[in-house]
Amino acid sequence: MAPTTNGSATFNEVPERSVHNNTIAYNKTSIDIDDVALDGGILAKTLYLSIDPHMRLWMNDTKDAATGPGYDLGKPIWGIGLASVVRSDKEGVSPGDIIYVQIYPFQEYNILSADTPLRVIHPEPGVPLSAYVNVLGMPGQTAFYGLEMIGNPKAGETIYVSAGAGTVGSLVAQLAKAKGLKVIASAGSNDKVEVMKRMGVDVAFNYKTADVADVLVKEGPIDIYWDHIGGPQLEAAIGACNLYARIIVCGALLAFNGAPSHHVKNLAEILYKRLRVQGFMYWEAEVEVEGHSGNPAKFINTLTPLVKSGKIHWTEQVFDGIESANRAIVTALTGVGNGKVVIKVADP
Amino acid sequence: MAPTTNGSATFNEVPERSVHNNTIAYNKTSIDIDDVALDGGILAKTLYLSIDPHMRLWMNDTKDAATGPGYDLGKPIWGIGLASVVRSDKEGVSPGDIIYVQIYPFQEYNILSADTPLRVIHPEPGVPLSAYVNVLGMPGQTAFYGLEMIGNPKAGETIYVSAGAGTVGSLVAQLAKAKGLKVIASAGSNDKVEVMKRMGVDVAFNYKTADVADVLVKEGPIDIYWDHIGGPQLEAAIGACNLYARIIVCGALLAFNGAPSHHVKNLAEILYKRLRVQGFMYWEAEVEVEGHSGNPAKFINTLTPLVKSGKIHWTEQVFDGIESANRAIVTALTGVGNGKVVIKVADP
Repeated sequence: MAPTTNGSATFNEVPERSVHNNTIAYNKTSIDIDDVALDGGILAKTLYLSIDPHMRLWMNDTKDAATGPGYDLGKPIWGIGLASVVRSDKEGVSPGDIIYVQIYPFQEYNILSADTPLRVIHPEPGVPLSAYVNVLGMPGQTAFYGLEMIGNPKAGETIYVSAGAGTVGSLVAQLAKAKGLKVIASAGSNDKVEVMKRMGVDVAFNYKTADVADVLVKEGPIDIYWDHIGGPQLEAAIGACNLYARIIVCGALLAFNGAPSHHVKNLAEILYKRLRVQGFMYWEAEVEVEGHSGNPAKFINTLTPLVKSGKIHWTEQVFDGIESANRAIVTALTGVGNGKVVIKVADP
Repeated sequence: MAPTTNGSATFNEVPERSVHNNTIAYNKTSIDIDDVALDGGILAKTLYLSIDPHMRLWMNDTKDAATGPGYDLGKPIWGIGLASVVRSDKEGVSPGDIIYVQIYPFQEYNILSADTPLRVIHPEPGVPLSAYVNVLGMPGQTAFYGLEMIGNPKAGETIYVSAGAGTVGSLVAQLAKAKGLKVIASAGSNDKVEVMKRMGVDVAFNYKTADVADVLVKEGPIDIYWDHIGGPQLEAAIGACNLYARIIVCGALLAFNGAPSHHVKNLAEILYKRLRVQGFMYWEAEVEVEGHSGNPAKFINTLTPLVKSGKIHWTEQVFDGIESANRAIVTALTGVGNGKVVIKVADP
């Protein structure tokens, strides 16, 4: 058969500070989907690509063990992908299967080697496919496991969620509310404040017009802080913490975008209040790491009914086609959007 | 019988910044040890008083839930005390018993109400009594439980201990060494560096003449950091941490003494490296707090043989008489001394 076009989102330029219009380029190669050799692996057709703020870290010049390997200039970027299997040499994976791949090159078609870690998804009737890169994928896992494994929420406690209208933050807020916590959450616009109120957040506020520390003094003290921001919000939250409070550091949007580090002046309170401050990323939810791995069955069995019944509110912004990768990343990083950013590449 | 003099160490002045010569005063009252009413409690004769840097926090003007209640001006200060029971109305406590009391007023004699938390000590032959306020008391508990409950040390890992010649630090270093870790430790004088080397520390250095970050780059990366200092040492340690490293924040000597807070510029690495940074004080070792309480039998059964056999090196500076309280506190806070500071008040 004639070769098929294989579009890709290629790493074109290391950004100075913010990602700009030319950071990711659209490139084309071609692939013969009927005849290409699989060498024991899988030919996957991309359905959805997940666009996440932490991808910014992989665009830095330094290849740091801590943040994972970086993107290679001139090659496709990668992240979480949902794909359908076109052909398979691999046992247990059949044509037509839907697979969730944590490190998936952003191309329309990929040959995945036999040892590529992946999970076959069994889409539940009534649940849209894109939910599996959203509330039933990494963001859901992050919220669920971060709360379970570090937050240890107890009914009657108080949580403060920064970026509470965001993809992960909104799930954290709702899961905490369902556990009987008082939920305080902030976002950067009045529209987002309304979204948070509709989700059931007890105290929703705009951190650009209200002082975080003031709100927390009035509505706290807090037992859990879910940190997406770092810097001044971390400082305000530490100040409002109860004894033995837990802080889940799940994002550092200021640092991601290269903002100068804020002087957090009350770190000694980590001692005085015996706080637990712990970094958490979705890696730990999916990958087996001692003391850091979650319970996938518990996650899926808890979240799926909430999604099917519409009891949990989740949002997405769908970009169309792999050509939109650069725009989608800018949207995810600048936080101007509303809902998790995904790219729909194809139907199954 | 004629009243007996009851000397006390009284909180005399809130210190501006450092504790000075007049912060704690020696006062005298009198007590009739044969006839004083016990009201169901205990008459205790003070043997040893433990002098600890964190007592500085209780001299601040603010009474903060986080740091515990503060001292009252004109009243005896308090801390950990070892006492013998003179008379007792309380079941399970008999005259002649040796008791360990976590919140013990610094007086020669105390009437302890029936609900005062205390533990009857059974001194082991061959173990000096003062060990029970040192390696077998709070400092030992702090090192043992902090390592067990937060540090989770594994053979082959690397730990960095600040104030490694100090009371707690030297025990942390030795317990970690016994578990098969590479131990890096620092102190503020060449004499202390020699002490650490004799204890078996692999890399002992003077942080005043060597750059902490440089040493950790060369000898790290590290899996555990035991923080007694805060500020610049915390920043250097975060920079040298491996993925999933643990930081036990057990002291903040700079903050205790009112030093301006240092700008720790790499807090985002808590996220990038998924660090766990947790405050820990001896309260958690002795007091029952969910998820924070230790296993006293395991502690005593592990440490006592090491003490008896001389396999663990522990040091003390003994001040004589309750009149020496102010001097003893200044010594503990300025770190000029060598070994845990205790006051010997009387023999049993």
